[in-house]
Amino acid sequence: MMKAVVVFSGGQDSTTCLLQAVSSRGAENLEALSFSYGQKHELELEAAQSITSELGVRHTVMDAGLLGQIVQSALLKGGGEIKQGDKCPNTVVDGRNMLFLFLAAVYAKSRDIKDIIAGVCQTDFSGYPDCRDVFIKSLNVTLNLAMDYEFRLITPLMWLTKKETWALADSLGRLEFIRTRTHSCYNNVRGGCGSCPACVLRERGYREYAAEKAVKEAASG
Amino acid sequence: MMKAVVVFSGGQDSTTCLLQAVSSRGAENLEALSFSYGQKHELELEAAQSITSELGVRHTVMDAGLLGQIVQSALLKGGGEIKQGDKCPNTVVDGRNMLFLFLAAVYAKSRDIKDIIAGVCQTDFSGYPDCRDVFIKSLNVTLNLAMDYEFRLITPLMWLTKKETWALADSLGRLEFIRTRTHSCYNNVRGGCGSCPACVLRERGYREYAAEKAVKEAASG
Repeated sequence: MMKAVVVFSGGQDSTTCLLQAVSSRGAENLEALSFSYGQKHELELEAAQSITSELGVRHTVMDAGLLGQIVQSALLKGGGEIKQGDKCPNTVVDGRNMLFLFLAAVYAKSRDIKDIIAGVCQTDFSGYPDCRDVFIKSLNVTLNLAMDYEFRLITPLMWLTKKETWALADSLGRLEFIRTRTHSCYNNVRGGCGSCPACVLRERGYREYAAEKAVKEAASG
Repeated sequence: MMKAVVVFSGGQDSTTCLLQAVSSRGAENLEALSFSYGQKHELELEAAQSITSELGVRHTVMDAGLLGQIVQSALLKGGGEIKQGDKCPNTVVDGRNMLFLFLAAVYAKSRDIKDIIAGVCQTDFSGYPDCRDVFIKSLNVTLNLAMDYEFRLITPLMWLTKKETWALADSLGRLEFIRTRTHSCYNNVRGGCGSCPACVLRERGYREYAAEKAVKEAASG
């Protein structure tokens, strides 16, 4: 089974997954799925549109605004200032990944697709419970039981650090593509505000990878 | 913990659950949640409104119309004629119970409620995979992992036949209330069309219960 639905935000992680899938499965076998849910950082949807258009991947934006009507979060419009809390940033949106993966599964089944790829990652998971591997595995079982179907939830970044995700992009020959074309900033600043939790994680990982690469190149050169 | 969210369609099963919960927990501790999702039988929403109003239970109707945009089903407007298929009626809506219970869980957590009551039933389940007990148990685990919270999915009718659900309504002193105030008919006929899968199940169960009751009354009288 080559076909797959890619849950695609237009950020660093899901774009790396999409590029890897294009390389291994071919753009024509992929469906990228984005969600509009009242997020402050709606620039990610613009990035998602631009990236899928360039890669030749079919792209659908689904309206999941319902979520914003029942949960409060600083990630959503009207949700107040974004801050780092004790356990995790106040940008957590209860049930977000579950809703997105659920909708991706219903969408996939309606197109006879079984593979669903998502860029969730436990390693740098910021304390979000729905990024954990145990949640994804449990959800996979639940989805299969719910629809009597054999979905496969595939999470290529689950055990990578942000540094290793940059290394993966580089190995695909797409380091600069990810640097310049994806949007991660929670504050919706083009190019990144540099201070929100998403920017901090992204930049720290990049600096670590760039430093390691420079050392290796110096050693081999 | 007395408070609970009741997933409430206005049909026989969820109304029986609601009446049982009102009796054991008190109307003031309940929140009834209905969903508008493009169902043909929208009379159920009218029934739901009327029943909760009479019982003094707070009632919310959520828009889950997104589901109808990605799945085809004869249960939905524009979905064609309702028929009994080989395995189950063509009224199955992929993921319906999963979406409803997910939304109920997000809603419950936002109100510090842990108990979620639903009228799903495996015994007369018409072949719908998302009515099975194994699915509900798996979903309970997944929801708890997704939101790092201790939800309890409670399904009082899981192992009852339709006849036994009528008996339960009678034991609550509410047989005629259920008979006259709830709406089950898929074809949206007030009082029931008598021929759709929902009407057939409901009426057969009622006839069985009424016959059994008449025999018992004759024996004891």
